[in-house]
Formats: sequence, C-alpha cells, structure tokens
Amino acid sequence: MKFRNFPMVPRVVYGRGSFDQTSEIIEEKRNKERPFIFLVDKVFKDKELSKNIPLQGKDIIIYIDTTDEPKTKGIDEIRDNLKEEFGIVSGIIGIGGGSVMDAAKAVAIMMNNEGSSTQYQGWDLVKNPAVYHVGIPTISGTGAEVSRTCILTGPERKLGINSDFTPFDQVILDPALTKGVEKNQAFFTGMDCYIHCIESLTGTYLNAFSKSYGEKALDLCQKVYVQKSEWDDESDEDLMMASWHGGMSIAYSQVGIAHAVSYGLSYLLGTHHGVGNCIVFDRLEKYYPEGVKEFKYMVEKNKIEIPQGICKGLSDEQFDIMINVSYGMVPLWENALGKDWQKIMTKEKLRALYEEM
Amino acid sequence: MKFRNFPMVPRVVYGRGSFDQTSEIIEEKRNKERPFIFLVDKVFKDKELSKNIPLQGKDIIIYIDTTDEPKTKGIDEIRDNLKEEFGIVSGIIGIGGGSVMDAAKAVAIMMNNEGSSTQYQGWDLVKNPAVYHVGIPTISGTGAEVSRTCILTGPERKLGINSDFTPFDQVILDPALTKGVEKNQAFFTGMDCYIHCIESLTGTYLNAFSKSYGEKALDLCQKVYVQKSEWDDESDEDLMMASWHGGMSIAYSQVGIAHAVSYGLSYLLGTHHGVGNCIVFDRLEKYYPEGVKEFKYMVEKNKIEIPQGICKGLSDEQFDIMINVSYGMVPLWENALGKDWQKIMTKEKLRALYEEM
Repeated sequence: MKFRNFPMVPRVVYGRGSFDQTSEIIEEKRNKERPFIFLVDKVFKDKELSKNIPLQGKDIIIYIDTTDEPKTKGIDEIRDNLKEEFGIVSGIIGIGGGSVMDAAKAVAIMMNNEGSSTQYQGWDLVKNPAVYHVGIPTISGTGAEVSRTCILTGPERKLGINSDFTPFDQVILDPALTKGVEKNQAFFTGMDCYIHCIESLTGTYLNAFSKSYGEKALDLCQKVYVQKSEWDDESDEDLMMASWHGGMSIAYSQVGIAHAVSYGLSYLLGTHHGVGNCIVFDRLEKYYPEGVKEFKYMVEKNKIEIPQGICKGLSDEQFDIMINVSYGMVPLWENALGKDWQKIMTKEKLRALYEEM
Repeated sequence: MKFRNFPMVPRVVYGRGSFDQTSEIIEEKRNKERPFIFLVDKVFKDKELSKNIPLQGKDIIIYIDTTDEPKTKGIDEIRDNLKEEFGIVSGIIGIGGGSVMDAAKAVAIMMNNEGSSTQYQGWDLVKNPAVYHVGIPTISGTGAEVSRTCILTGPERKLGINSDFTPFDQVILDPALTKGVEKNQAFFTGMDCYIHCIESLTGTYLNAFSKSYGEKALDLCQKVYVQKSEWDDESDEDLMMASWHGGMSIAYSQVGIAHAVSYGLSYLLGTHHGVGNCIVFDRLEKYYPEGVKEFKYMVEKNKIEIPQGICKGLSDEQFDIMINVSYGMVPLWENALGKDWQKIMTKEKLRALYEEM
C-alpha cells in the first residue's frame, strides 16, 4: 500500500487518578485462571505505586531494571519464564517509562510468537497477534505509549519490532503518575519528544496528518519548557499529551539525524535514548538551526548539564561500530537529508561528529 | 468509571489518493460471499467517485439522499432491506459527509441489534458490536469520522447512538475527496468544527486531553479561514485534520449552547446541523464573545450569507417544541454554563433567542 494503514491504540483513558481504574479495565479481559503480568520499573519497588497495583489470583509483578534499555535476551528470558510458569497469560501491563513500555510490548508479542525476539526486529515480521497489553506511562516524552514500535538492543543491532501488533490494546494516561520524576531524567525524556518533533516537522516524509500532531506536541513542549517559569500539575498534563501527540506524529513521518546518531551511542556505550539524543542534538545546529537554538535555551533555563566527552578515547574500531549502526538507519537519514544523504553526511563527517561528543 | 475509557478508531489511512486503497483494505475483512454495502451520498451518483468504488461480487451501492439528515425510520428500513436480501453482510462503507458517516455507523450497529434504532438513541444502550464499518469522509468539519456517536432524528427526539460500538473500525482520510465541495456547504461544515472547538475549549468539562486536540483543531480552522487568503490543496488537508482532531476533542468534553439550540431548529425545521449551528452561533456574542467575533469575520471574509428569519411566524407550540428539545440537551448546557444553567438560560431567554433567528 502506498499509504500506511496506521494502527491506533483502540482504547485510551485520560485523567488524573485514572490509574485507579486499572483493575476495572483489565478485569473484562481476564481469561479465567490466567494471570496478568505487571512489568514495572524497578524504581517503584516498595513505593506507593507498587502497593496500588491491583493484583488478583496468580497475577505477578516483574520489576524491570532500566539501568540498561531492553535487550532481546532479557525479553526472551521473561517470555520463557512466563511460558514455563503459566503457559498462557491474560495480558501484560507495562508501568514505567519508555524502556518498560517497550519491554511490555515486546513480551506481549513474544508470548504468541516463537523463537527469539531478534527474529522480529525490523518491519512487519511478526506473524501472530500479541497477547492483550496495556501501557501505563510514568514519565512523558518517548511516545512509546502510542507508537508502532518497541526498540530492543540485540547482539547485532538496536532496532525496533515495528508491526501492527506492537501498539498497546489499552493505554491509561494518568498525569499524577509522572509527578516527582527525577529532574534530569524528566528533562531528557521530555526532550526526546521535542527533538523528534523538530526532526519530523523538518523532515522530507511529512504530511498533513503527522504535521498536525507534531505541531501540537511541539507547542506543548514549548509551553512547558520555554514559556512557563515553573513546573506545575498542568506541566505534567501538557507533557503527557505532548508525548502522545509526538508519538502519533511519527505515523507518517520519521525522526532524523539526532536519533540516527544517538542509536550508535546507545548500541556501543549503552547511552540512554533520551540522554543520547540530547548529546547529539546539542551539536546539530547546522542541520536544525532554530530547534537547536531553542534546545540550548531550554537546557540553560532548566540548569541541565549535557554529558560531555563520552566518546573520548574510543578506538577506531569503536567509532566504526557506531558509524555503521547509525548508517544502518536509512529511513531516518533519508527523512532528514533526502535520498542523497550519504553524500551530505559522509562517514568522515559522522566520525568527526562523534569525536566532538 | 470516573474517566471514560475512550474508543479510538483502530485503523486510519491518511493520504492524497488513499481512496484507491479501499479495495485492498476492505478485502481482508470480506466474509466469503457476503457483500460490502457502500452507503454513498447521492450527490456522487454518476460522478467520477462512484465509478471508482471497488464493487466486487454482490457488493452494492445505496445512495443516501442527504436533503434530510438521517432518520431512525430510514436507518431501520435500510437494515431491514439488507437483512432480507443478504442476511449477513461483510461490512458497511460510508462515503460522504456527516449525514452519511452517521447513517453508516447506525446501519452497522443495527445489522447486529434487534428492534428499531430509536431504542438505542442515548448513551451505552447498544448490546452487540456493530458489523465492520468504514468511514470515508468527503467533506470536513463534523468530526463524525472519529466520534463515538451517530446523530439520528426519531419520532420523539434528535439524539445520537452513543456507544463504544459506534466508532468506525477503519477510516480513510483522502483530502483529494473534499476538493470541489459547494462553497456554502463547505463553509457551514467547516464552521461545525470551529464552533465545537470554541464550545469545548470554553466549557467546564475540559481536560488536558481534549484541550490539546481542540486547540489544534482550532488552530487549523483559523489557518484555513482566517489567515489564508485563498483556498488551496493544503486547505483541504488542514481542514480534514481539523475535523479529525475536533472530533477527538469531544472525547472528554462537550459541545455547548450553539449545538443545544441548533438541535431545536433541526428537530422542528429540519435545518441542517452545520447551517443551524451558524445561525445560532451568530447570535451568541454574549456567551462566546471572542469566538463569535472571529466567526463574523470569517463569514464576511468568505462572503457567506447566514439564513435569517427562519423562525418568523412560528406558533407558540412550535417554539415550545424547540425549547423542549434544546432543554433536553442537559450535558451541553452544563458544559457551557455549569450546573445552574437553567437559571442563566431561562426558557424565556431561549424563546427570545429563537425569535431573533
């Protein structure tokens, strides 16, 4: 098909306190004795939120350590353990940031698809529908709650499982859950949204559908980070919607250079996606002049320190690994620079860019 | 539940020319020998669009006369005829404006629900899921392509079938289809979007979710009708997205006074929804000062004549009918004026308002 038939999340609840409706919402999807599996960011262990997770029967919580972003091996292990212990589950509920959202989507897919998750990294490789899966974001910006992908790091590549079966069946958007996120993490994640709006809105793939979502997401980011002087409840609400619309804007567009380069950092150095994007975007004034200028203003205003010197002392071989990972992100480069992107961003230029970081 | 678990259209294609993908999209939903039924606005009879409808096997086109907006009786008749001729159908495809969108949604529901459509006018009264149904809008503004309702005029009331089964399973957004709509009709329909943005954004029900969609829809309406000097392809695209986001904004909000009053006109006089809204909104400066001011500017700029004197010579009884229909729209009044709305908009005031029109 010339135009993608985009899968939207078929059910969404929005509201401050809507997390309390989780039990009622998932109950109608409960399959007799089959448990719901809650994948929850480890930071919530022994915290209020974890105590409020409505476990019933054989339901369990699996805490996800997000020190590293999700790996194919970890996803396969969770799936294998669940298969062994329960055979079939009623569903997978992810509660956390982008890493947990992606893990929940990936596990839900792998419960119904054989082999390793590495086999499904790519576009439209998934054969069977995922089990019922619910996303409950606790930090805003990645858009993972609404997107058609879940990014995994495998032995050979960092790449998403992009498929019509990837999006959540249900999303619960409760802005109360994002209150109190650590300041730097909140900023880097929020900037993931800002950066992908800039990349999508200046890209060659854009159409009116994605533009309208991207513009709204950008407006909301600017309201929160540029126009307002203090963070308040409304900021949590606006950024949650920015993340949502930002994720939707990718339907018919693509991210660009910051993401393409940042994937190299993540793959080699394990740099978290949001931080990596900021490290890269900070150096892209030539490609996104207005966006980078505003970005620098937001960094300064929010007193954020962007990590420096992370590529210092890397070997030629290591630089080559990053360059190859980044060069593999063809659609991102094409979106940013057009079909002749390799002439514009030569491997030498890309190496020089990495060396600055 | 405190917060509605909102059903989103699970599949959407956007693109200029995406109408050509209709055949491919619906084919995977075809149920053996069961036909697809295309409900198509009668204005397209013998036109290019009708020739391009991908009929196969027993598929048929039913042309819908939209001189009047859809009536419960008409919906029941279509359902009865389809049941008698085919028993079961593969799906219902609506191609047209708001009236046809609503008719397609209603017929799809009634194919799987017994009795008359009058039984389901209201909130969450539908028992069984609708048959697969697809919306292909050919005029932008109503938001019917994305909403959870389908408005029907019955013997006793004009009221929507509001249910989780109402939204389309698939929407095809092709801005090429809205090219060449008659100027007045295009304006009145576009203003339906503008007016419901103003009503939702100034209403008491609003939250950040609906606000973000409503603001974007309003921005796009203003771009098309206020900022631009000429209508172009981009206007078709932007207004199509305005309609979409405007429809989504109603998820957690409501329309207001113009809609509540306009329902009275439609019920008694058969005034079309978009025209009725404009006739009413034009007189609501006291309630929506900025919106009405901008509306009057758009009317003038686009050289539109708002019908005048439509209530001239009506009897007391007729005024009472309109007042009662309008007074029945409790959520709309509450959204606009708060719980004490009856003290603000007394029946006397409402009568005076109708008399002006």
